[in-house]
Amino acid sequence: MSNVSNSNIPEKTIERLSEYRRSLLSCHKQGITHIFSHVLAGMHGITAVQVRRDLMLIGFSSDTKKGYDVKVLIEFINNILDSESVMNIAVIGMGHLGQAITKYFNSKGLKLRIVTAFDIDPQKVGTTIDDIPCYHMNQFEEVVSSMDISIVVISSPTRVAPTLVVPIINAGIKGVLNFTSAPLHFPPGIVSENYDITTILEKVAYFVKERDENNNKN
Amino acid sequence: MSNVSNSNIPEKTIERLSEYRRSLLSCHKQGITHIFSHVLAGMHGITAVQVRRDLMLIGFSSDTKKGYDVKVLIEFINNILDSESVMNIAVIGMGHLGQAITKYFNSKGLKLRIVTAFDIDPQKVGTTIDDIPCYHMNQFEEVVSSMDISIVVISSPTRVAPTLVVPIINAGIKGVLNFTSAPLHFPPGIVSENYDITTILEKVAYFVKERDENNNKN
Repeated sequence: MSNVSNSNIPEKTIERLSEYRRSLLSCHKQGITHIFSHVLAGMHGITAVQVRRDLMLIGFSSDTKKGYDVKVLIEFINNILDSESVMNIAVIGMGHLGQAITKYFNSKGLKLRIVTAFDIDPQKVGTTIDDIPCYHMNQFEEVVSSMDISIVVISSPTRVAPTLVVPIINAGIKGVLNFTSAPLHFPPGIVSENYDITTILEKVAYFVKERDENNNKN
Repeated sequence: MSNVSNSNIPEKTIERLSEYRRSLLSCHKQGITHIFSHVLAGMHGITAVQVRRDLMLIGFSSDTKKGYDVKVLIEFINNILDSESVMNIAVIGMGHLGQAITKYFNSKGLKLRIVTAFDIDPQKVGTTIDDIPCYHMNQFEEVVSSMDISIVVISSPTRVAPTLVVPIINAGIKGVLNFTSAPLHFPPGIVSENYDITTILEKVAYFVKERDENNNKN
């Protein structure tokens, strides 16, 4: 699904660090100061060994009798995951999915911010949706440069997606998260993830069917 | 991220079969009758060896000099992935994300159909959104039973998600696809996937940052 690879830290560990951080932030909010690896593991349905291995990989080892210091661990993960500067993101396609993603992200106070959107719908272009301005796709290159956008999220209709590849490359975008059903390929310099929701729902349905069939056999 | 496992076919292969099928359907629409493994591979940014291995795993081997017969291969994948009967899906949380998912799915003519939604917003309950009826969550068990729902998609606010676990178990749901940031855990009899969009965007951002740092070093 992805062409990210080639960091010292495996992709799956990066995903889990992002997930641990969200749980740790929620613990921190509730006034919890320490957490054991097996408790953190339980929150994510994995083993304590996996949690300890992930944290060892990033060089975190301050496990005490009380467990990990929640605040220190959050800071530690911040240093791994976050860029020193805020990274600006643009959404291409401001339909329901684009708007859902924008709301979701910008309410979280992350270092990642969706700062602008692109669409071709005259009802949307020139307006502000959830506090972010919506531009026409024919201004893409210019706006990406002036707003210092490094990542785009593609939530356009699937048929439009292939036409976005060249503008994205030309504008110097560094990362792409593609939610359409059209798998897109970019040159090695661009980090990209194809993330089709249909695939995951079909997978869940498949394993539901498999269980049903196995149960009927027994 | 998931607790599906334990089928003869690996999860990743199931995901790729779903992706191959979408590409094959698109080829079929364009009148393409045959496709070589390396062409199919190229469409998904993977190797031909991977494609052949996946198809071997499901027992498909009718590779000819002209490549795979597109229509036959689609049928073959249908037999693996699809249930004989239509599987009914409900969406819990009919905000932007819920509506995006519903529109997206039901326009695709899949065997999976979103047939109903649940919310607690009085503006939504009792109405029809994109042709599907929206019920109040307090009717959940009753509607799941009368409409024969086997899978739910959770697109509620994250803070609500943990309160849904017990109703889902009680209603006899068999599969859960959770899009919120709260990882949910279900008993082994229920197939579940936690699929948090934030994680993937943070991962893309991380690898963009890594590349930048490596480029600066060189």
